Amino acid sequence: MSTDTARRLVESMRDLLWERGYTGTSPKAVLQRAGAGQGSMYHHFAGKADLAQSAIVETAQEMRAKADAELSGPAPAVERLTAYLRRERDVLRGCPIGGLTQDAELMADPQLRAPVAETLAWLRGRLAEVLGEAVAAGELAPTLDASAVATTLVATLQGGYVLARAAGSREPFDQAVAGVLGLLLSASEH
Amino acid sequence: MSTDTARRLVESMRDLLWERGYTGTSPKAVLQRAGAGQGSMYHHFAGKADLAQSAIVETAQEMRAKADAELSGPAPAVERLTAYLRRERDVLRGCPIGGLTQDAELMADPQLRAPVAETLAWLRGRLAEVLGEAVAAGELAPTLDASAVATTLVATLQGGYVLARAAGSREPFDQAVAGVLGLLLSASEH
Repeated sequence: MSTDTARRLVESMRDLLWERGYTGTSPKAVLQRAGAGQGSMYHHFAGKADLAQSAIVETAQEMRAKADAELSGPAPAVERLTAYLRRERDVLRGCPIGGLTQDAELMADPQLRAPVAETLAWLRGRLAEVLGEAVAAGELAPTLDASAVATTLVATLQGGYVLARAAGSREPFDQAVAGVLGLLLSASEH
Repeated sequence: MSTDTARRLVESMRDLLWERGYTGTSPKAVLQRAGAGQGSMYHHFAGKADLAQSAIVETAQEMRAKADAELSGPAPAVERLTAYLRRERDVLRGCPIGGLTQDAELMADPQLRAPVAETLAWLRGRLAEVLGEAVAAGELAPTLDASAVATTLVATLQGGYVLARAAGSREPFDQAVAGVLGLLLSASEH
């Protein structure tokens, strides 16, 4: 057994968590997708929860690095926010982090919940910073509550995924983003 | 076996869908919670999916009736919207309808997905009507895109539940609602 097997197990768990959730993913399904033998999971990981933790931490780090890069460019703050909200997303698959919150078994395990909670809290904080920059630069009204609106933006994305999955179409996601951007920009025009 | 048993089976399935999702709910768990015998589910229902459909339809009807009552009062439209968004909710349990969208098995069954999709689509439409009333009454700016903003409002609630579950606290839900209401009201003040 090689570290290559461990890598394939983590990748397979990441995919399956996104597709089927934690409760819906059996150790057998992970092994099958990874093309790994019975004993390999327990050679590299203490069990399903341990492997899932590695998978979630990796997904969270990727999501955070990508958002941070998009939100940290040289463009004006509102332009960066707009680009972040409008960027291409695999809407019907849902958010690989936010979607995990519906899994009661996963949320009941503090080790598995922590990276989910931290990533979403980080995103709220980062968006609040960029909204603060926009206010400081006179792009948005000084009365704007950056912390509350940052949470609204993250909620709009997460809720947009929920509505898109229900509808079987990305249309509600795009509408939700258009609606919040319209409010943000018209609220700033005075 | 009585219709009282059927009633208890539906109630138990409604609770378990909310707590554990569809994939996480075994027929055995439903029977146990309902205090019903082995054969009773198949006496009243074709199986787990059929029972779940009755449960989802009932939950959806209740949610819709409650929202419609709140959104249809004699108060000014913005007041009704605010009251609806701010009303008491069991935030950490999540939305009993929106939460189901994360269950891949449930979403893959058109009969189970339909009442989820229809309820959320109805809510978007109803909120768009009330936003339209607010615009017509001069409470909100005529430039407001009622349909997009209605979707933003539903997304904010659904995403607020996601963030609250991740954080293990209702604080992000309340922030998300405060943020979107702040945007809505300041966008209308000119």
